[in-house]
Amino acid sequence: MPELRQNRFTKEWVIIATERAKRPEDLKVKKTEQKVLPHYSETCPFCPGNEHLAPPEVTRLEKDGKWVVRVVPNKFAALAREGEPTRMIERSHRSMNGVGIHDVIVEGPDHASTTALASDAQVTAILQMYRERYIDLINDKRITQVTIFKNHGNGAGSSLEHPHSQLIATPVISHQVRERLYESLRHYDEYGECMFCESIHEELKEGSRIVMETEYFVAMEPYASNTPFTTHIYPKRHMACYGEVTMTELGDLGKLLRTLLGKLYFGLDNPDYNYTIRSAPSESCGAANYHWYISVIPRLTKMAGFEIGSGMFINVVLPEAAAEYLRKVQVEAVVGTR
Amino acid sequence: MPELRQNRFTKEWVIIATERAKRPEDLKVKKTEQKVLPHYSETCPFCPGNEHLAPPEVTRLEKDGKWVVRVVPNKFAALAREGEPTRMIERSHRSMNGVGIHDVIVEGPDHASTTALASDAQVTAILQMYRERYIDLINDKRITQVTIFKNHGNGAGSSLEHPHSQLIATPVISHQVRERLYESLRHYDEYGECMFCESIHEELKEGSRIVMETEYFVAMEPYASNTPFTTHIYPKRHMACYGEVTMTELGDLGKLLRTLLGKLYFGLDNPDYNYTIRSAPSESCGAANYHWYISVIPRLTKMAGFEIGSGMFINVVLPEAAAEYLRKVQVEAVVGTR
Repeated sequence: MPELRQNRFTKEWVIIATERAKRPEDLKVKKTEQKVLPHYSETCPFCPGNEHLAPPEVTRLEKDGKWVVRVVPNKFAALAREGEPTRMIERSHRSMNGVGIHDVIVEGPDHASTTALASDAQVTAILQMYRERYIDLINDKRITQVTIFKNHGNGAGSSLEHPHSQLIATPVISHQVRERLYESLRHYDEYGECMFCESIHEELKEGSRIVMETEYFVAMEPYASNTPFTTHIYPKRHMACYGEVTMTELGDLGKLLRTLLGKLYFGLDNPDYNYTIRSAPSESCGAANYHWYISVIPRLTKMAGFEIGSGMFINVVLPEAAAEYLRKVQVEAVVGTR
Repeated sequence: MPELRQNRFTKEWVIIATERAKRPEDLKVKKTEQKVLPHYSETCPFCPGNEHLAPPEVTRLEKDGKWVVRVVPNKFAALAREGEPTRMIERSHRSMNGVGIHDVIVEGPDHASTTALASDAQVTAILQMYRERYIDLINDKRITQVTIFKNHGNGAGSSLEHPHSQLIATPVISHQVRERLYESLRHYDEYGECMFCESIHEELKEGSRIVMETEYFVAMEPYASNTPFTTHIYPKRHMACYGEVTMTELGDLGKLLRTLLGKLYFGLDNPDYNYTIRSAPSESCGAANYHWYISVIPRLTKMAGFEIGSGMFINVVLPEAAAEYLRKVQVEAVVGTR
């Protein structure tokens, strides 16, 4: 019998279609080409020596006089960097001029690298750069929210080979965060606690959806997961905003993120994936009701008319089965796997 | 300068990235194969003569003793047809057993047909069948909502060649409809009018986003459209539920839907697409605040990490430009194009 489960953070229902259940092996997406990338490409704007091919640098992290991670404006930015956001109201229409920041975070000098196989130190450096940019941007009074995300692979919307992630800082709150803010505020009103903290506590106790746990973080499959192997990484300590994370915690998170992506890489044959940091908007930093987390979404299935039209997903893998599968995938230098 | 626009029905913001703007021609998705389909395939469970290959028929529409449209249960149903939906509450978890109906609507006997090139009468027959099933299912007291949808092409999630659409009837309300119900109720509380009716009136007067208009329906690009060439078809008359539509109106809608899909077919090179009918849940049939419509979504761009992670979309085509482009595409026997 299939099961309907409700996402408590959004009230979305998902169909867990166990009758259609697939083995994780069946979800591996066949790649048309497994291109071997060079460590340097002379036409790549993100490779060392080609810095002039990208827009002027915003900031960098250095080690031994060389950059480890650098940030440049997106050459094809979705928003305009300069200007003041102004709201226009015309009959029923609400609009603003498209002011905001759209950056690319170049994740390292090696063109052929991939996060799943990078060093913990490199992944930690990327997360540190996210933090630096996050704090900078929420202090820009034009900015309401900073969305940090990564597209890995063509099927996840990436068009450049060189490992990179992006951030888009907007003068408005995104829908995904707004819904969660709303529900978590209702929960706080009723119970006087962060509903994310409560869920983390409950899930750790229950255990079946936990993928791995470290000192400061936990990775788990959501109870009402929309798509197979979607994994959330939560800080155990209550924090509404990504900017509140400490350097010590980031070292721990770097290991966990690298290991989790390694489990996907080895367990599901290097799938295309997206990840995104769902942090509170700047005005809610420090809030008692919201809790930031990273959502990692392997792109194993296609959204079809039902999902697009209804907002209800059909998930063909039981979250508990996904967690069990990922727990078992061995990754070299795994830290804190249960 | 890009623009931020708010969808008044959901409060979602969309980035209209005019700086990244693409010409409609540039959005055509290159097809790896343009397979010529036979009119009959002996292994196809939906071709006439092969009815035994599909589960036992639910209902059919006939003409001259032959079926024109037929409905069968989905062989790989996401929900179980029999049983009573029972809600389970366990700590913070909310679930139900997955009871519901998952049908396939076989859109005609011709394996090689496609809605864009079908006769108006055939498209009208499909819409009539939707209506028959819709009314049947909302009278099943286990069912709260009926979602009718079509996946056209592999990129839109279709795995079978024979033209077909589907319906999934659930004991819960879908997220997309719930959000719109909520906002439209707030609008009704404040203004005493259906916000959809108001928008239709306003858009018809303004004109720039209208694709085509017939006696009873209007097709338009949404003001805050998430993706290029998303088109909504609204009945001009106020109706909350699809089941309220009359046979006369369906004749008109058949022409409009076929013509609109023809415009996509000829104007955008037969793109993969989804369409879905967003009707009120059964308990809101007859409601003054909600208004059903069809959302047609060509699959021209990929959802990436930003869209998935934030719920905010980047649309590279101005809705007004998409409407103008579609208005100009000539389709044989076009009815009521402005």
